[in-house]
Amino acid sequence: MTRERLIYMPLGGAGEIGMNAYVYGYGAPGAERLILVDLGVAFPDMESTPGVDLIMPDMNWLIERADRLEAIFVTHAHEDHIGGIAHFYRALGAPIHARAFTANIARGKMVEHGHPPEAIVTVSAWPETVAAGPFTVGFLPISHSIPESAALVIDTPVGRLIHTGDFKLDPTPLVGEAFDPELWVDVARDGVKALICDSTNVFSPHPGRSEASLGPAIETLVERAEGMVVATTFASNVARVKTLAEAGQRAGRSIVLLGRAMRRMIEASAETGVLNNFPQVVSAEEARDLPRDSVMLLVTGSQGERRAASAQLARGKYQGLELKEGDLFLFSSKTIPGNERGVIRIMNALSEKGVDVVDDDTGQYHVSGHANRPDLERIHDIVNPEILIPMHGEHRHLREHVKLAGSRGMQGVLAVNGTMVDLTDVKAKVVDYVETGRSYLDGSVLIGAMDGVVRDRIRMALNGHVTATIILDEEDEPLGDPWCEIMGLPDSGKSNAPLVEVLEADIGQFLSRANEKTLASDATLTESLRRTVRQSAQNEIGRKPEVTVVISRMR
Amino acid sequence: MTRERLIYMPLGGAGEIGMNAYVYGYGAPGAERLILVDLGVAFPDMESTPGVDLIMPDMNWLIERADRLEAIFVTHAHEDHIGGIAHFYRALGAPIHARAFTANIARGKMVEHGHPPEAIVTVSAWPETVAAGPFTVGFLPISHSIPESAALVIDTPVGRLIHTGDFKLDPTPLVGEAFDPELWVDVARDGVKALICDSTNVFSPHPGRSEASLGPAIETLVERAEGMVVATTFASNVARVKTLAEAGQRAGRSIVLLGRAMRRMIEASAETGVLNNFPQVVSAEEARDLPRDSVMLLVTGSQGERRAASAQLARGKYQGLELKEGDLFLFSSKTIPGNERGVIRIMNALSEKGVDVVDDDTGQYHVSGHANRPDLERIHDIVNPEILIPMHGEHRHLREHVKLAGSRGMQGVLAVNGTMVDLTDVKAKVVDYVETGRSYLDGSVLIGAMDGVVRDRIRMALNGHVTATIILDEEDEPLGDPWCEIMGLPDSGKSNAPLVEVLEADIGQFLSRANEKTLASDATLTESLRRTVRQSAQNEIGRKPEVTVVISRMR
Repeated sequence: MTRERLIYMPLGGAGEIGMNAYVYGYGAPGAERLILVDLGVAFPDMESTPGVDLIMPDMNWLIERADRLEAIFVTHAHEDHIGGIAHFYRALGAPIHARAFTANIARGKMVEHGHPPEAIVTVSAWPETVAAGPFTVGFLPISHSIPESAALVIDTPVGRLIHTGDFKLDPTPLVGEAFDPELWVDVARDGVKALICDSTNVFSPHPGRSEASLGPAIETLVERAEGMVVATTFASNVARVKTLAEAGQRAGRSIVLLGRAMRRMIEASAETGVLNNFPQVVSAEEARDLPRDSVMLLVTGSQGERRAASAQLARGKYQGLELKEGDLFLFSSKTIPGNERGVIRIMNALSEKGVDVVDDDTGQYHVSGHANRPDLERIHDIVNPEILIPMHGEHRHLREHVKLAGSRGMQGVLAVNGTMVDLTDVKAKVVDYVETGRSYLDGSVLIGAMDGVVRDRIRMALNGHVTATIILDEEDEPLGDPWCEIMGLPDSGKSNAPLVEVLEADIGQFLSRANEKTLASDATLTESLRRTVRQSAQNEIGRKPEVTVVISRMR
Repeated sequence: MTRERLIYMPLGGAGEIGMNAYVYGYGAPGAERLILVDLGVAFPDMESTPGVDLIMPDMNWLIERADRLEAIFVTHAHEDHIGGIAHFYRALGAPIHARAFTANIARGKMVEHGHPPEAIVTVSAWPETVAAGPFTVGFLPISHSIPESAALVIDTPVGRLIHTGDFKLDPTPLVGEAFDPELWVDVARDGVKALICDSTNVFSPHPGRSEASLGPAIETLVERAEGMVVATTFASNVARVKTLAEAGQRAGRSIVLLGRAMRRMIEASAETGVLNNFPQVVSAEEARDLPRDSVMLLVTGSQGERRAASAQLARGKYQGLELKEGDLFLFSSKTIPGNERGVIRIMNALSEKGVDVVDDDTGQYHVSGHANRPDLERIHDIVNPEILIPMHGEHRHLREHVKLAGSRGMQGVLAVNGTMVDLTDVKAKVVDYVETGRSYLDGSVLIGAMDGVVRDRIRMALNGHVTATIILDEEDEPLGDPWCEIMGLPDSGKSNAPLVEVLEADIGQFLSRANEKTLASDATLTESLRRTVRQSAQNEIGRKPEVTVVISRMR
């Protein structure tokens, strides 16, 4: 019999920040019993994924082995950890375990997709554990920016693993449990084989600051404001929403929550009792009748999203509320790379209204939810694992974290998505690489990132599109004139004649000279017409468009 | 007779960072003689301007009044100040004045476009001046990051104006003249009516640092490196290229310049004698035979541009040079908002090769070329103008700079593109708003930003495209089956049947039920087919595509 082994393999989240999905397995090679930690999504952008609704990890490897999947564990309720559970529920079919707040959010997603909410199992915090095949898994509280974030303690036949999930070391996190070093020392006391560790902030050299450090500065800012105050942050940053609401309340203002995601998070917090003493809120309708200097709006859209409350307030009214000269708008957030232009667009729109915009340039109004480099070193020291596997990071973060591990006497393993690591022995080794990628939720269809659909969309965006139609009679002779339609191209170019007429004339010329063989073959004719259109457009407007050729034969 | 007046009107650069173009005029209202300061471009992005080659200010107002345009003055050779001169040369026709280095770059652009290089007039620095109608204009040296940057001293019948161009207050700028406070005090001595002032860094609270402060840190970094060193910055940041080359040379390395723009800038500098003691460079070919630890490459592509040397080195070879484990790559640059994802893509590709990447997170390897807030205050104090008009900034920068001016006792005027300001009297007043916008160089065609061409491209990128073709006989009866082609859409959806077949079936259904009147009208039929296709696609794939309908009638 082949010796049993313990394996780790990320399917998402290792080589990118977003769409976390980590597989652990134990058993004979190829027959391991599996668990999945987190099943998140990532968000599309116009540059690389136009029109896509959500980006998800390619779960095919696991779907093909769904019969070996014992359970799914979700560390916390952020979209990059929980967003994929309903999409893959049918394909994976395993029970999903989470703490109460996370489970509440998860059940909402299941119901939205028509799946049974009972598939979500609520688990209490460590020392409670769940048996899942050869694994015993417990949810170890850790501070982050959302209630009930947890690391996972994963006991295996060959030793204990700790999977940190997202974390920071915050003694006063406002929501969720404070970091409890003694608890962690206790869990690690008997030795930890491997620490699978968040790497997001490995390049941030200073110790992270506590959520509680923000309140006074925000309160002062709000107190000094003379008009309405608006503050935006990620709705899922429940800690920040609370910090902002409490600072507003202390400054004597009524709090209004705007944006669906904002209200959903606060509701889930209330339903599960994890958010004590959240200030009383008033509705947008009530706020309209209050003096401007007694209102503070907490709104979605900190990343410049065009449809969110922030963008709508910057453009005009939102739920009857409108910003004016002398109001104050606070971005209590960090702009995620790639979202800068959207955020700046909103800042300038607000500036045009005479609204003062404050962002986190000074470092007073935002703290990160992830452990900085010195905090990573502290958790390394507490857990003192034999092996350190960085996760939750782009390649550069993982690589830097591996270097850091090496410099501190640990065995660091660089494992990007699809890398299978054997953790059975003292020395970890890479034993396989699995094809992985991304899938896109596109409208209602799940498509592969490599299917060419998005590539064609990008090409049309860069090059424009021409439809060229010809009709051939029974003798393969052109019937009537060729017909072109353009989309995303200038109406005319060099010759000042309408572009479609230039294209049609060049197609006509081509057809008048084409031989019988060319005219008889759809494939040859399509390719020739495509080339004719592209060359004609290149001459006329200096650009080669995408071309759809339609040949109708009157046979 | 109407009283003559002095006017200022930005056509580009006031309300955005990029494509600077500022008009000054003097004379009877509507008959002012005009000069233009700078004529720059901006760069497109996938999100808002896919496929566009260059963005230029809408110069139509000035083109319609080209007979009143006396001259164009270019403050320095950065693309956002000089990039449009050749494109608008025919339409504007005025002589273009610049200092020698700027003129050299300008002549290159003229020749590229087939225009006479003699249209560029070289002017020496202040106190030399040029008469242009009612204006007398001199080039006042100021420190920036490219040779021979100048502010303009614009003398008018009603007083002196100073237009700063881009500037910082650098006593040791490495290239170009050091900031000379005494010269500026002297120029301002007899009073300045208005200061038209760079606003880029109005939100940066600390005094700017000198270019010369970077050399030692970069030298130390290069000295410690064990493999090849690559550094990237804007090619047009000639000061930085020199800083990097000198630091590399001091660290004992041979310097290689890679990328066309990099070599062009250094050539122009050499031709005009403005770059003394630039280290000897070696070719890429020579570098291939040198030990890796004795070479330093200076490359283009600091903003993550896909085709630049940086991106090519990150992906594979460039001119026979290839990066390896243990090499060092320095971004001596700031990432412009919107370019983050491209830069991060390169960083991760380098990380995959084992290359150590250093960026400016620590603030040691880059300084800005623009005046920070305290530097702006210093120039305000030196010039002591009656009126301050902020330029070279987004709306939020201009607004903040106006507030700053007001807090320091000056009259600040917020004038975005298209705002005509009358500066004749002590109190400036806005007298007109002119329609302005952007034009796009798209392939070889100049199109208006509002023409809908780019909007259609964005729609195709977001929604995909369907071509639907039908043929009708002499009786308006469908001849054969309808035909659909898709681009940028999934092959199949809900029903698992090919999407084109589903669309064709639904069109067929529609046609079989359509009445004579519908079938007889191209407009009605096109709109009905478009709606049928969009609804059919929505049912099948959850997305409404852009649709091109082609109706052929056998009449």
